[in-house]
Order: sequence, then structure tokens, then C-alpha cells
Amino acid sequence: MKHHSPEAEGPRFPDSTIRRLSLYLRFLQEADRTGAETISSSDLATRGGTTSAQVRKDLSLFGSFGKRGLGYSVPELLRELHQILGVDRPWRVGLIGAGKLGSALSSYEDFRRRGFEIRAVFDSDPQKIGKRWGEVHVIADADLEKVLERESIEIVMIAVPAGAAQALADRVVASGVHAILNFAPIRLRTPDDVALRNVDMAVEMEGLSFALTNR
Amino acid sequence: MKHHSPEAEGPRFPDSTIRRLSLYLRFLQEADRTGAETISSSDLATRGGTTSAQVRKDLSLFGSFGKRGLGYSVPELLRELHQILGVDRPWRVGLIGAGKLGSALSSYEDFRRRGFEIRAVFDSDPQKIGKRWGEVHVIADADLEKVLERESIEIVMIAVPAGAAQALADRVVASGVHAILNFAPIRLRTPDDVALRNVDMAVEMEGLSFALTNR
Repeated sequence: MKHHSPEAEGPRFPDSTIRRLSLYLRFLQEADRTGAETISSSDLATRGGTTSAQVRKDLSLFGSFGKRGLGYSVPELLRELHQILGVDRPWRVGLIGAGKLGSALSSYEDFRRRGFEIRAVFDSDPQKIGKRWGEVHVIADADLEKVLERESIEIVMIAVPAGAAQALADRVVASGVHAILNFAPIRLRTPDDVALRNVDMAVEMEGLSFALTNR
Repeated sequence: MKHHSPEAEGPRFPDSTIRRLSLYLRFLQEADRTGAETISSSDLATRGGTTSAQVRKDLSLFGSFGKRGLGYSVPELLRELHQILGVDRPWRVGLIGAGKLGSALSSYEDFRRRGFEIRAVFDSDPQKIGKRWGEVHVIADADLEKVLERESIEIVMIAVPAGAAQALADRVVASGVHAILNFAPIRLRTPDDVALRNVDMAVEMEGLSFALTNR
């Protein structure tokens, strides 16, 4: 699956579609808590910041849901979206970087609630290695490959300075991990069969300075 | 400027284009540090995770840069991109939420380096109010409107739990701030003339569980 240039390459499932599915899932969870049985595509559209037509198009990529005029069954679509997004099971996550951002990530409630469980934390700082960090202890970067394998880590979060990120990503990939969530402000190079998402806070901030400048 | 449903509404400058401009800017800064005088659209494409054609299209939205066959002048394009993205000047930023994520954000080097200066930090926790936080002191949420105005805050980062975010965003908007970077895992409702970007880490994580599930 290609992940590096979605717009240019036209993958089967664009990242923007998958992001909207996550937003629909959240809204369905809220609707379910309030006891709603059905939900319309326009309700979902409001939540996903899009149109009813886009909601129907997004969902039609994955099957035939909902009945014309009746909307979607909340419990059914909830179950389907869990399966589609792969959050009907827990995931074993590794975190590289026990700094302030790493600390925020490891206590981030929304990860735990969605089944993303941090099973290993790595750092290069001898001051940090061995320290208790949530439910685990910080492990030396040197042991990265060994521990990723031992803990059957499936997704790695990289929260280190830009200069250190690529070399660590290379080691993660070489260890057989196929998914990376990168917080370092650098565009990582990874093979096409590795799923890579970037959370780049300065890029988002520049989107705002652009908007304010070009109002 | 519409920001809520870029794909559906087709604004003049899609968020995806602006994100790529930020990536081009980073690569130009690196190239400039190594003393490069010119750069090709294919070099920029590699960095932005896209194609040469897309680079030329992105830049052509903002003017006529580069000479056919000669590429782009690094210092010239650097200057232009700074202006286009509005990072040729500093920005006064407020942060709501003095938790772990807020702590990571306020010490995030890439913000400072790009001129995003945190001038006020807010929290509702009496234990935190008054505490030193980088170069400022934590201020009570109750004083939000007063301090946003006094400090001429232009961009607000929201790093509070989902349940508290919308009410705070409403107060930020009512105070005349036109740009919000939201880290709360909720889709905020804001008027069309407010620029809103969401950094939603769980959504990105679900993009990875999706990719692993649908390999």
C-alpha cells in the first residue's frame, strides 16, 4: 500500500477518507451513548466536516450500509467501522523518545481508550533509561530491535528531534514493524509497504499563519 | 475563507497545498544551509512527498517562480515562501491547557524557531495558576478574554479534554481571535472566518491500524 504521495498516486483509500471514517466513528460512539438507533448521512457529514454525498461515497467504498430514507443503524455501522479501521482489537505500540512530547503521548487517554497500548518506551539518555514510565520502564535505544521483537510491537511512535528520526525509523523498519506515527519535524523515507503518518505541529501552525496572512 | 470542508467546498488554496508549501520551505532552509543556489522541482517533490508537476502547480498558485530548465533560486523562493506562509514575522500565540500536552507544546522548539511565540498560558486548575511556565505564568481561564486582548494574541492552541474544548473555543472566537490550533479530540464548530486546524493524534493512529488491517 502506497502512503507517501496519496494525491499523486491515487491509492484505493485516500488518507482523507480514512480520517473522515475516524470522525464518523467518534460521532457514532457519542450517538450510541445517547441511545440513538439510527443516524443520517447528514448528521455524519456535520461531524466529519463534509457533505452527505461525501459520507455516502466514503462508506460505499467498504460495502453497502444504510437504507435509503432510513439512515444508518448506529450499532451496525459502529461495528463495521470498528472492523474497517482495525480498532476491534488492541494494538501493541512502541514509543521512541521519553521527552516532554513522549510523556504527553504516553498518558494520552484517547490512545488507551481506542486500544493503542504502549508496551515499550525507548530513549538514548542514560538519565532516563530504567525510569518508570506509566506501566513500563524506559529502555535504551541500543536494545530497540531486540525489544520490538520481544514485545511484538506493531506500531511505533517516533518523538525525537529531527536529526535522530531517520536513523531510528530505518531500524524500526528493519525490525519488521510496518506502521510509524512520526512526530519529528522531518519527512521520513520509508519503504512503500510501511504505513507512515506524520503529526507535524509546526506545519499545521503555518497553515494558520497562512490563513491569517491571506484573509 | 472557508476551512471546514475543504474537499467539499473547494477553497482557493486547499489545506493539502499549504501543507506541502511548509514542507518545501523546510527543504529550502536545509538547502540554503548547505549553500545550494538553485533547486529543482523534483528535489522539492521528493521532500513534499509528491510529484514535480504537483510542485509546479502548487507554486504557480502564488506567482511565477523559477526558470524552465534552471530550477528555482533558493534564496528567492525561500523569501517568497516565508511571505506566502506569513512566517516572515512573529506571531503571538496563546495556549489553553497547562497539562502534559501543553507542556510539550510550550517547549516545542520548532514553534519558537518559526516565530510562533507563546505569550500566555491558561488553565482552570488552581494548583497550576500562577506557576511559572517557560517565560510566562499560568493564568486562570476566567481571565481568558481579558488576557487575550491585553496580549494581542493572534493564534490560540487548545490542549484541554474534549468536553471543555468547545466552550473555550467559543470564548476565544468571541474575543476576536481568528486562528485556532485544536488538539482536543473533538471537531470544533467555529465561524467560517476563523481558521481552524486540528491535530488529532488518535485519528492518525487509526489511519495506521486501518493500513495494517487492510494490507
